[in-house]
Amino acid sequence: MSPSDRLARQLQFLVEIDKLKSVLRRTWLVDGSRLENDAEHSWHLGLFAVLLAEHAAGENLDLLRVLKMVLMHDLVEIDAGDTYAYDEVAKADQADREQQAADRLFALLPPDQAAEFRGLWDEFEAGRTLEARFAAAVDRFQPLLHNYLTRGRAWRQHGVTSDRVVARTRSIADGAPVLWEHVLELIRDAVAEGYLAE
Amino acid sequence: MSPSDRLARQLQFLVEIDKLKSVLRRTWLVDGSRLENDAEHSWHLGLFAVLLAEHAAGENLDLLRVLKMVLMHDLVEIDAGDTYAYDEVAKADQADREQQAADRLFALLPPDQAAEFRGLWDEFEAGRTLEARFAAAVDRFQPLLHNYLTRGRAWRQHGVTSDRVVARTRSIADGAPVLWEHVLELIRDAVAEGYLAE
Repeated sequence: MSPSDRLARQLQFLVEIDKLKSVLRRTWLVDGSRLENDAEHSWHLGLFAVLLAEHAAGENLDLLRVLKMVLMHDLVEIDAGDTYAYDEVAKADQADREQQAADRLFALLPPDQAAEFRGLWDEFEAGRTLEARFAAAVDRFQPLLHNYLTRGRAWRQHGVTSDRVVARTRSIADGAPVLWEHVLELIRDAVAEGYLAE
Repeated sequence: MSPSDRLARQLQFLVEIDKLKSVLRRTWLVDGSRLENDAEHSWHLGLFAVLLAEHAAGENLDLLRVLKMVLMHDLVEIDAGDTYAYDEVAKADQADREQQAADRLFALLPPDQAAEFRGLWDEFEAGRTLEARFAAAVDRFQPLLHNYLTRGRAWRQHGVTSDRVVARTRSIADGAPVLWEHVLELIRDAVAEGYLAE
């Protein structure tokens, strides 16, 4: 591949992923003005990761790898769409849809970068490394914080109960134990305030 | 500062910066559906930096510092607003407005992280290190690419001429010389196609 072909493929990918800005999530912005999209969610996670890295569940966190993961982990939703965490029907074929999306999207890149991105995404999905667990922890913590601050707006819209929120966010304990303690307080408070059904 | 005070300040900052998602830029999304906001722009720059790092104007680029810079470089616009690159009136007091914003925003963080963010932002603004130059290069390249792909929509809306675009983007040559060659081609083509006035 010539240097100019290589740059052309990198730019084709960077243009393609602009579509992530149009993939809407079920999470409301903190000010309640509109739903959040995947691109701004991914940006927000980047700064969650930078500022909360000291709370990761282990020493010697590779923050660069965490940042790459949080910036790219939702790219598959360009094709597969956002699957709501509490939508059991959509979750049934989520893995298939996202695998196909990864196959198409990452193939746009030069082969070495395609392999790097596939590796990062597989690592994030597998959730076995310290970096993947911490990245997943901030990915589950951020929408919970938004839901709490908007008085449970998305939870109430979708009839989500506290046991399901606990089940969904419990893995935060594996990535960032201190955050998990805080999450439990927020969930208790959300139930007490009526933001979240028991 | 107790550990719980420290976490509380980190979270207060992370909630405050949600406002960046509501700061609109003059750049259109590639599909032309709406203007881009600062948060999704910052996310996009993160992946520009990851994928184009090999084109940086020097060896041993510290990509982690670049990513921190691109993720946080526009936070001051929460208070100061987006200053359009071709608005000479607004640019007159831009530095003052942004310094005040940095003073307020970073003071929300625990002192060590406030100092880190201030240092990153000062480094980005000064543009003297390899990392700052590369971060600035992708920050100027991404909107140019969007303008080109939307057939010069923002340029035409604001009556921007090619000499001003060249003056605005010339510093890309200091951060990523290969990108600058590509930018000159895009500008020439944009003029030929009538996307950009001479």
